[in-house]
Amino acid sequence: MVHNNTIQLPVEDMPTSWYNILPDLPSPLPPPMDPEEGPSRLKNLGNIFSKNILMQEAAEDKYITIPDEVRDLYIQSGRPRPLIRAKRLENELNTPAKLYYKAEFYSPTGSHKVNTAIAQAYYAKKEGYERMATETGAGQWGTALAYACSLLGLELTVYWVRAASSWKAERFRLMQLYGADVCASPSDRTEVGRKMLKEDPNHPGGLGIAISEAIEDVSTDEKAVYSLGSVLNHVLLHQTIIGLETKKQMELVDDYPDVVISCLGGGSNFGGLSIPFFKDRIKNGNDTKFLAAQSEVAPNLKGEYRYDFGDYAEQTPLLKMCTLGHREQIQPIKGDGLRYHAAAPIISALKAAGYIDTLIFPSDEEYVFQRAKKFVQTEGFLPAAESNYSIAAAIDEALECKNSGEEKTILFNISGHGFMDMHGFADVLELQ
Amino acid sequence: MVHNNTIQLPVEDMPTSWYNILPDLPSPLPPPMDPEEGPSRLKNLGNIFSKNILMQEAAEDKYITIPDEVRDLYIQSGRPRPLIRAKRLENELNTPAKLYYKAEFYSPTGSHKVNTAIAQAYYAKKEGYERMATETGAGQWGTALAYACSLLGLELTVYWVRAASSWKAERFRLMQLYGADVCASPSDRTEVGRKMLKEDPNHPGGLGIAISEAIEDVSTDEKAVYSLGSVLNHVLLHQTIIGLETKKQMELVDDYPDVVISCLGGGSNFGGLSIPFFKDRIKNGNDTKFLAAQSEVAPNLKGEYRYDFGDYAEQTPLLKMCTLGHREQIQPIKGDGLRYHAAAPIISALKAAGYIDTLIFPSDEEYVFQRAKKFVQTEGFLPAAESNYSIAAAIDEALECKNSGEEKTILFNISGHGFMDMHGFADVLELQ
Repeated sequence: MVHNNTIQLPVEDMPTSWYNILPDLPSPLPPPMDPEEGPSRLKNLGNIFSKNILMQEAAEDKYITIPDEVRDLYIQSGRPRPLIRAKRLENELNTPAKLYYKAEFYSPTGSHKVNTAIAQAYYAKKEGYERMATETGAGQWGTALAYACSLLGLELTVYWVRAASSWKAERFRLMQLYGADVCASPSDRTEVGRKMLKEDPNHPGGLGIAISEAIEDVSTDEKAVYSLGSVLNHVLLHQTIIGLETKKQMELVDDYPDVVISCLGGGSNFGGLSIPFFKDRIKNGNDTKFLAAQSEVAPNLKGEYRYDFGDYAEQTPLLKMCTLGHREQIQPIKGDGLRYHAAAPIISALKAAGYIDTLIFPSDEEYVFQRAKKFVQTEGFLPAAESNYSIAAAIDEALECKNSGEEKTILFNISGHGFMDMHGFADVLELQ
Repeated sequence: MVHNNTIQLPVEDMPTSWYNILPDLPSPLPPPMDPEEGPSRLKNLGNIFSKNILMQEAAEDKYITIPDEVRDLYIQSGRPRPLIRAKRLENELNTPAKLYYKAEFYSPTGSHKVNTAIAQAYYAKKEGYERMATETGAGQWGTALAYACSLLGLELTVYWVRAASSWKAERFRLMQLYGADVCASPSDRTEVGRKMLKEDPNHPGGLGIAISEAIEDVSTDEKAVYSLGSVLNHVLLHQTIIGLETKKQMELVDDYPDVVISCLGGGSNFGGLSIPFFKDRIKNGNDTKFLAAQSEVAPNLKGEYRYDFGDYAEQTPLLKMCTLGHREQIQPIKGDGLRYHAAAPIISALKAAGYIDTLIFPSDEEYVFQRAKKFVQTEGFLPAAESNYSIAAAIDEALECKNSGEEKTILFNISGHGFMDMHGFADVLELQ
């Protein structure tokens, strides 16, 4: 008998709108604010973001139409992506649970980040900008935006956290192949960068610092616009394409998740998968569990829920977030995309309202990578270091079901592939 | 308007049989032979191959049913894979030609090699073998078989051409992650390996040498079976899944190729795409053109059509092939998978019968990689170094159409992705 564990969504059934959770949140999202001192960051937003993006950031409509050109590019980038029933992993674990994973790793650049990169580059181009600037941590976001800018005919400058860029030369080159101008951050191109380099010429950098550099860059160039790969409302909006597709796919097999899992750094892949399911829980009061997999080096959901800056140099407005503090020094790990001091405002609000559980994994990453190895050897796909956390959490849940006998339906997101980051696996698992 | 350039084949429409061209060839394929001297290689085949594989090697049926478990694993590995109309590349080239590429790069290990790896591992398991041994050149084949052996629960030993293994550490580790035992070839594990190492301790190796090592390995272990990733009839048989899917996909958009293109080393990806279309040309006498893209370091289709060994140490039977000679020293290039001294017997016979044109690209690879860069920047996908040759040939054809005004339909295969081989792009295009 042929078992079809791959749940394809026909292209014509790809969602035509993104889902905006803002009007459906249990209580209104606390707005961004200016700090008591210094220039107005809120007023500066108009200089650094495109108009459409700012409108989406505070949109009131529950559904926002995906422009046709963005839909074309989603299809070009391989959407809709498959949902896969992990039958082989289930057998290996001998669990009564049903495991499903969304295959965002089937992406031209290796991750889910293309979903918002395409949208942001599209609006920038539409509004006449010639260049974008951004930061990147693990490198997945920079690559995704380099891809989108290449396809849409925009220049791109990428400020890449030095700690990650130094061991990911191949990803550096991929961004260059797409035509992007990439520099290690802190760089000598900005005031904030030069200041940090003066303190320490080998400063490892951090996402918050790189954000500051990119914002400073575009603030002085009218033809350039800033782009952020996570955290903000519009980014999560674009990423809902993941969960919206997944809901349709689960309907095709007449199933619905009891547990929705993903790793969480800034929150874009976690939010992308989960937000359309949060909608049901908020509206219908069902008991779906939402589980965020984090590293103990940056357990931001365990942080205080308060107003904080998004970047190191305090160039962003204050956002109400679960935060470790915007100047927290975060230890390097292979799952570099999880190293951010705060969770997206939307995710933070949902956490504060009691909708999200967290699972914190140890910083040596061996537990996580060993579980990921089990996935590789049964399902055959090589996940990104960040996705290993989603897998580890899903396996933990499945093993709990084995003990309890519960036949839970567990959904998780494999947000990227690890072909460019084998070094991570090799180091953690001490391969040759 | 939404343009759907991605032609998905529903899973339920995936072909249920492979197509065996042997009975449809213009004249019977010259059989393998023993050399005049030495032990019988033909008799030894029973010691090194599984029974099912040997039966398929000389099968007389035109269609051979794909076993259900193999079909399951094909689906697990992401089949059917999309066929993509390269509208964005067409626009960039300003050509009246229609370009389609088969997206074999959407593969768990990065290439089309999984198609035969799954089948070969399945038959080995079914016949009670516990271990497989193989050689690999570019590393794509070794990774594919490591994947298949992992999913089917078999051990694997990989002899990897040292010239390639030395600059592809990440792929080395990926094979290990799947659980394979990988060594650089020539190795000290076999007589032939030790002999070559004695001559030169840093011997760069070659596919022919690695084949000799793997054959010697399994010849002395009853529980082990040999597996070859290209050249032989059964490998091309399994790879016809590529072309069979593609034909169905082209029917869905009511089109048919005037030109079928792929790169050619041993011939498995070229054959996989083209053989189902050869069938039509042989049977109906249509004028579809078949174009093999090769490197000037190994233009085996321009070689003599005669009986030759498949390996350096003369352990294989003699096969009638277009060959450069089985001891030809082949200069290293980034497209390592194209470095084989001879073309598959089936492909060689079709070439000798006048059905195949060849396009030979210069060994510095810049011409090829520059054209591939154009593909990356328009279509967004990162091809394997070998696939860059397919792209270069397709672009050359499309530009000819621009000059002649012909609206040809050009089909090509992107047999793998280049995420693990960015070093190749970086070296050839002198990226930072």
